[in-house]
Amino acid sequence: ETGFTMMTQQQLKFLNEFWYLSDVEIKGDPAIQQGLRFNLFHLLQSVGRDGRTNIAAKGLTGEGYEGHYFWDTETYILPFFLYNNPGISRKLLEFRYNTLGKAKERARQMSHPKGALFPWRTINGEECSTYFPGGTAQYHINADIAFAIKRYMEATADWDFLIQYGAEILFETARLWENLGDYIPQKDNQFCINGVTGPDEYTALVNNNCYTNLMARENLDYAYQVALWLKENTPQAYQRLAINIGLEESELAAWKKAAANMYIPYDPELKVHPQDDDFLNRAAWDFSRTPPENYPLLMHYHPLVIYRHQVCKQADLILALFLLGDQFSQEQKRRDFDFYEKITTHDSSLSTCIFSIVASEIGYVDKAYQYFLNTVRTDLDDIQGNTKDGIHAANMAGTWMCLVYGFAGMRAYDGALSFNPTLPELWQEYRFKITLRGSVLELGIDQTGVSFHLLQGNALTLSCYGKPVHLDSDCPTLFMKRS
Amino acid sequence: ETGFTMMTQQQLKFLNEFWYLSDVEIKGDPAIQQGLRFNLFHLLQSVGRDGRTNIAAKGLTGEGYEGHYFWDTETYILPFFLYNNPGISRKLLEFRYNTLGKAKERARQMSHPKGALFPWRTINGEECSTYFPGGTAQYHINADIAFAIKRYMEATADWDFLIQYGAEILFETARLWENLGDYIPQKDNQFCINGVTGPDEYTALVNNNCYTNLMARENLDYAYQVALWLKENTPQAYQRLAINIGLEESELAAWKKAAANMYIPYDPELKVHPQDDDFLNRAAWDFSRTPPENYPLLMHYHPLVIYRHQVCKQADLILALFLLGDQFSQEQKRRDFDFYEKITTHDSSLSTCIFSIVASEIGYVDKAYQYFLNTVRTDLDDIQGNTKDGIHAANMAGTWMCLVYGFAGMRAYDGALSFNPTLPELWQEYRFKITLRGSVLELGIDQTGVSFHLLQGNALTLSCYGKPVHLDSDCPTLFMKRS
Repeated sequence: ETGFTMMTQQQLKFLNEFWYLSDVEIKGDPAIQQGLRFNLFHLLQSVGRDGRTNIAAKGLTGEGYEGHYFWDTETYILPFFLYNNPGISRKLLEFRYNTLGKAKERARQMSHPKGALFPWRTINGEECSTYFPGGTAQYHINADIAFAIKRYMEATADWDFLIQYGAEILFETARLWENLGDYIPQKDNQFCINGVTGPDEYTALVNNNCYTNLMARENLDYAYQVALWLKENTPQAYQRLAINIGLEESELAAWKKAAANMYIPYDPELKVHPQDDDFLNRAAWDFSRTPPENYPLLMHYHPLVIYRHQVCKQADLILALFLLGDQFSQEQKRRDFDFYEKITTHDSSLSTCIFSIVASEIGYVDKAYQYFLNTVRTDLDDIQGNTKDGIHAANMAGTWMCLVYGFAGMRAYDGALSFNPTLPELWQEYRFKITLRGSVLELGIDQTGVSFHLLQGNALTLSCYGKPVHLDSDCPTLFMKRS
Repeated sequence: ETGFTMMTQQQLKFLNEFWYLSDVEIKGDPAIQQGLRFNLFHLLQSVGRDGRTNIAAKGLTGEGYEGHYFWDTETYILPFFLYNNPGISRKLLEFRYNTLGKAKERARQMSHPKGALFPWRTINGEECSTYFPGGTAQYHINADIAFAIKRYMEATADWDFLIQYGAEILFETARLWENLGDYIPQKDNQFCINGVTGPDEYTALVNNNCYTNLMARENLDYAYQVALWLKENTPQAYQRLAINIGLEESELAAWKKAAANMYIPYDPELKVHPQDDDFLNRAAWDFSRTPPENYPLLMHYHPLVIYRHQVCKQADLILALFLLGDQFSQEQKRRDFDFYEKITTHDSSLSTCIFSIVASEIGYVDKAYQYFLNTVRTDLDDIQGNTKDGIHAANMAGTWMCLVYGFAGMRAYDGALSFNPTLPELWQEYRFKITLRGSVLELGIDQTGVSFHLLQGNALTLSCYGKPVHLDSDCPTLFMKRS
C-alpha cells in the first residue's frame, strides 16, 4: 500500500496504540468522558517526540505564551506520558539534556560559576522570559526537571537514560542550588535559598519559598544518591562524566550537606508551612471587596498590590504536598490545605488539578470532584474565557492526574506503586491503564472495588489500600473490595 | 536700554543676586572651589521656576533619565534653594501640587481608594517608570515630598503656601500611607508597610524598609499636626479643604494611630537598624571576588543576584540618620554607619554626599572629606564615567549639603537652626550664606572659629556648638571659638 491509504492506516495504527494504552473510560458522565478524551488527544498532538521539541503551554492551538515551553512539561504533563507512553516522556527529558549547554550559559549569566539554570520559558533552550520576577526568578524549574528525572527513573529503570543524560542534568542542577543558596547565620546556619519566586505568581522575589526549598532538597539529595549509584555500579561512566563536567568529590559532600541543612519554613503556632519567610507577615487579601469581575486579579491589580497581600494565584506549597507526599502527615496536609485553599484564587490553570488531587488524598471528596470538574472541560467550555489564545495543555494533563493520582490515589514514592481508589459519587465505573517498566496494567474501579489486570509484561508488585498486590502471568488478575 | 545690552544687564543682575546669596567660598583649594561653583551654576540653570517645570536628574545637559524628575528634587536639591532662594524651592513644591491630580489618579490605579501616590519619575506628573520594582515601588517619594514641605515650612513659615498647597499634599500623602500599610498580627499589630522598595535600589520589593517606615511616620505625624494647626488657626481654610477632599475626622485619628504604631526594624543583637525585615537574612556580598571593573554592580550582575545579597547601591537607612537625625543617638548613628558603610558600593551618585554628612556628624573627619571629594567634581572630572549622559544634579546639590550640613553641621530640627562647624584640614577658611525667614546670615569658618553676620532681615536665634546665638540689627555679628 502507498499514498493516502497507507498513511491512513499508519495513522490508525498509531492512534489505536495510543488509545489502547492511554484511554480513560468513565461510565456515568459522557460530558466528562468527552472532556478527558479531548484533553488527552491534545496532549498527544502537541507533544514533541524528537528530543529537540517539547510541548508548548498552549499546545498547537494558539499564540498565547508564544509557543514557549515551561515547567508545565515536567510537573504537569510528563506523568501522563510517563505512565502511558514512556518513550515520549524520555524524549521530553532529552530535550532538557539537549538544551543543557544553554542552561549552563544562563547560569554563568546569572553569576553562578558552576551548574545549569534552566529557562523559565523557552523554545530553543534560551531563557525567553522578559519579566524576571515571574520568570527567571522561578528557579524551581531546575528542581522540577530533576524531580521528573527521578519519577522517570522510578517508573522505567532506564539506566541507559540516566547514564547518558539524566545524571548530568541532576549534577548540574544540584550544583546550581548549592551555589544559589547560603548558610545564613540568622537562620541557625541552615541552608537558605533567597530571592526567588515559587510556583505561585501572586508572590514574587521571596526568601525561602517552601516549595522551592523542599524540591531543591530533593534535587540535591537525588543527585547525591545517583552519584553514589553510578560510582558503585558504573564507575567508568561516572569517571567519564565527572571528568567531562569537572565534578569534584567535595561537591557531592556539599550537595549532601545542603540537603541535610535545608531550611524549611514552618509556623509552630499555626502549624502550617508558610509559603515563604514573609508570607504570614502580609496582610490578608480582602476577598469580600473583590467583585467577581476583578478576577483574575492579575488583570485588575498592579503586581505591587497583589504581592503585598496573602493571596495565591495557584497551588504552591500544596503542590509539594502532592509531589513529596511521603514527607507530610495526613494531618499536616489537611492543615496546609485548609490554610491555602482560603487564599487561593486559582487564577492559574495549573492550580485546580493539584487541589483536586490533594483534596482526594485527605478525604475532601466533594472538593476533589469540584476541582476536577473545573479542569476537565476548561477548554471545551472555555471556562477561563481565554481559550481563544490556545488550550491549557498542563491543565489537560492535570485532568488525567486528578483521576489517576486523585480518585485512584496512585503514588510511586521511591518507585513503589500504590493505589487508594475512590469512586466519584456520580460515576458507575472508571478504567485506565498504566505502563510500568514494560508491563501494562489495567485498573477498573466501580462501587464494589478495584480490579487489576496485568495485560502484558513482567510481574508487578504494588499495594492497594495499604495491602500488597502481586500480579504475574500465572495470576494476572486480582479484585480488591473497596476499603 | 534695550536689546542685547539690556539683556546682558538683566542677566548680570540676576546672576549677581544668585551668587551673592548662594556662593560658597573656600580658601585653600581652587579645584574644590571650582567644582562647587560649577555645581551651583548647573543647579541654577536647570531648575524650573514656574511651578510647572521642575529640575531633571541630568539638569539640562544630557539625555540620561529622559529629562525626568525624581525624589532628587526634594531630598537632595531643594535644601540648596530653600536656604538660598526660597522662592524657587516654593515653586518646586508647587510643581507637586500642580501634579497632585495625577498623583491621585495614580493612587487609584494602584488600588488605593484614597490618597495620592506621586510618580517615581515624571515630567508632567504621570508615572513614567517602567521597571516598577525600582520605580513605583519606591513609595517613599510620597514621604520625601511631605518632608520637603515640612523643611520648607520650618525655614520660611510660609503659611500661605501651607494653606493653599502644602496641607492638601500632606493630607493626600498621609492618606496613601494609611491605606498602604497594615496592622500585622505577626508583628504585634504594629503598622507595617510591605512590598516596597526603599532608596537603595540594590534591594527591592521588601517589607518594612526602615527608611520608608521612618519617613512615612514623619509624613503621617506632620499631616496630623498640620491638620490640628489649621483647625486651630485657620478653621475656615481647614473646613474648605476638608470638604474639597472629603476629609473625615476619623482619618486624622487613623494617621495618628498609624504613626504611633509604626513598625521600625531594629536588631537587638547587632544593635543596628536592618534596612528591611529580611536584610539580615541575606548572604553577604563577596566583595573580595568582585573585581573593580564589575562596578557599578547593576551593569554586571542580574538584579536577582544583587537583590539576594546584603549589598547597597546607596544611602538608605543612612539617609534617615541625616534627615531624622534627632531620632537617633550618636552611638546609634555610628553603629549604623559602620554597618552600612562596609556594604555600600555608592554605585548611585545619591550616596556619597549623605555618607559624608553623617560621617561629619559622628566625627569621622577623614571619611567625611573623602566622600565630599567624591561628590564635588563628579561631573567636572567625569568620575562615574557617564557624564556624557548628563550631569548628576542631585550629587551637585549634595556637594553643597556636604559643606553646609556636613562640615558646618547645620541642622534645623523643628525649625531650630543649629551649627556644629568643623574645618577640613586642608582648608584655610570657608564662607557661605543662609537665607532664613527673610533674613540673610553669613557664616565664615576658619581655624580660629566661626563668625556669624546677619546681613539683612529680622533677628535670628540659633545655636552653635550647643550654645545659643542671637543676632539682630543691634548686634549683627558674633564670633565663636571652635569647640
